[in-house]
Amino acid sequence: MVNYPNGRKFIAEKAVSVSAVKRKTNESYGNRGMTLEDDLNDSNLYYLSRGIAVIHKKPTPIQIVQVDYPKRSAAVIKEAYFKQASTTDYNGVYKGKYIDFEAKETRNPSSFPLKNFHEHQIRHMEAVLGQGGISFVILRFASTDEVFLLEAARLLDYWVRMEQGGRKSIRKEEIAGAGRQIQVGFQPRIDYLKILDDLYNLSS
Amino acid sequence: MVNYPNGRKFIAEKAVSVSAVKRKTNESYGNRGMTLEDDLNDSNLYYLSRGIAVIHKKPTPIQIVQVDYPKRSAAVIKEAYFKQASTTDYNGVYKGKYIDFEAKETRNPSSFPLKNFHEHQIRHMEAVLGQGGISFVILRFASTDEVFLLEAARLLDYWVRMEQGGRKSIRKEEIAGAGRQIQVGFQPRIDYLKILDDLYNLSS
Repeated sequence: MVNYPNGRKFIAEKAVSVSAVKRKTNESYGNRGMTLEDDLNDSNLYYLSRGIAVIHKKPTPIQIVQVDYPKRSAAVIKEAYFKQASTTDYNGVYKGKYIDFEAKETRNPSSFPLKNFHEHQIRHMEAVLGQGGISFVILRFASTDEVFLLEAARLLDYWVRMEQGGRKSIRKEEIAGAGRQIQVGFQPRIDYLKILDDLYNLSS
Repeated sequence: MVNYPNGRKFIAEKAVSVSAVKRKTNESYGNRGMTLEDDLNDSNLYYLSRGIAVIHKKPTPIQIVQVDYPKRSAAVIKEAYFKQASTTDYNGVYKGKYIDFEAKETRNPSSFPLKNFHEHQIRHMEAVLGQGGISFVILRFASTDEVFLLEAARLLDYWVRMEQGGRKSIRKEEIAGAGRQIQVGFQPRIDYLKILDDLYNLSS
């Protein structure tokens, strides 16, 4: 039996997904027991099941160090580590358009720290824009449950401002002005495609 | 020190990627020491570095069962299993178009077994076509090092034929007729975008 650092017991018999592991260790998402990732996965499943869009979260990249191959049973990974992603987490297709985004949340009530993104992801977003794809981030302020969509081009502006010695975060007022707030609903919980319809005239 | 089933020693000190693990266990790819996956990753890196396209292989999906959180060091995955993918392995954007494909190879010299694909992937390709994306498979005959691009719509025809009681594979002549052969080159090794330029009039 292995315990989490917080002393909670880990039930090794029950296989859990990476997102479930993350959920167990994520204390920032209030009492709903749902992470932003869960809400987006549910929304994407809603879109998929209704033929609205095909958008998936990529699997978490894992660096595998040791694998056992027991006779007559499945290969077992015995040692592996979480790896930094070189792209964004979500991508897919909607009305013929390539869709690519990253989702992040913060407990900071008034600004979004840019350290939530890393250089690789910023370069990836630039490359996607260069190919005519639609790229953005979904930002959630956990303390107030406010969710915003900010286009990658705007995020890049704030990234450049930081590189030039400016602030290392984006103020919430800036996000509200440069981006669009997404009202959190029921089905789908985070209807980001409605925002894209509006921004890119896709609603017809 | 842990050994592979074939007795080869596993160097636990050196972290290896999933594709490297696959390469070690893949005996079907002749003497080049390169898998079809390696060739496609190299080709995608070529496209990316020249600003031609942004196409990546998705990480291998892993079902995590047990994670240790040692004090002051990275989380270690102690038990995990390879999971079946629910989508195709590769996707991205090229000249504004959503690109989505799966790559498979066979040692069978004369036909490609359809068991190389599973139902989830077939449904995914249908869904991508429904959203106006470009979907296809890259098929390699290992014995002759012949590589073909076959559009998903054609693959679906052969899948339906199988479901209606027909053959469980596609003859190589059928693939050569319905698809396009890709000449294996140097840079990029597998220039599948050139085929797409031609099929979808993207070359302008």
